[in-house]
Amino acid sequence: MYNNENFDSATRKLFEDKNIAFVATLMKDGSPQITPVWIDIEGDSILVNTAMGRVKQKNIEKDPRIAISVVDRNNPYHMVSVRGEVTEQITGQVAEDHIDKMAKKYLDKDKYPLRTEGEQRILLKVTPKKVAVM
Amino acid sequence: MYNNENFDSATRKLFEDKNIAFVATLMKDGSPQITPVWIDIEGDSILVNTAMGRVKQKNIEKDPRIAISVVDRNNPYHMVSVRGEVTEQITGQVAEDHIDKMAKKYLDKDKYPLRTEGEQRILLKVTPKKVAVM
Repeated sequence: MYNNENFDSATRKLFEDKNIAFVATLMKDGSPQITPVWIDIEGDSILVNTAMGRVKQKNIEKDPRIAISVVDRNNPYHMVSVRGEVTEQITGQVAEDHIDKMAKKYLDKDKYPLRTEGEQRILLKVTPKKVAVM
Repeated sequence: MYNNENFDSATRKLFEDKNIAFVATLMKDGSPQITPVWIDIEGDSILVNTAMGRVKQKNIEKDPRIAISVVDRNNPYHMVSVRGEVTEQITGQVAEDHIDKMAKKYLDKDKYPLRTEGEQRILLKVTPKKVAVM
């Protein structure tokens, strides 16, 4: 079921629609950790917006390997599972603007309403190596 | 947000209801992999029913560390994330009966309808080490 092709349009839609994604990263001891995230896609890169210092950001700093799964919120048997690597980490205005874009998509708010004092957003760009669609 | 307490009743319900769970295991090279699964709970163990020879079964055979996330299908912001280890693997009638129980829960079928020729079910018993409820 795994392939290395680019995303087809139905798979791409899983990332574009307001589905929650699950991201697995590796803890310092190499054990897996999962967290739910908002998700985006740009070309063939998957985008995850997190904050500096969060567990998953610290994890990928040490080991960039990541797995991401997205399920269609209207059909739990339509899903995609990706294995890849974080190949770019972007901070600053690009990351701040992107979290507002995600707030618009998921919450229909122009500004991300959950910012905490001093929080610095970071955009993780994931390059897929293996893609499985089910 | 992480604690080591037993599951409270709202968290337990996430496992009891017909929510899809996500399981992360470790590939041979230590990279993370995610798959969606049906899920069950028994006491403080989480149960995952898979088939012999599947990627995740081979993965936990090599490294029993696992992470599991379950989201309330009616409220994507109510979820639990668990890190733990597969501490028991049960094959035979117990595992075969259990997949029928899952078919009843998720598909309302008395018998699991997706068995393949020669398939051997295996029940993974997960002992949680860290539990995060959001």
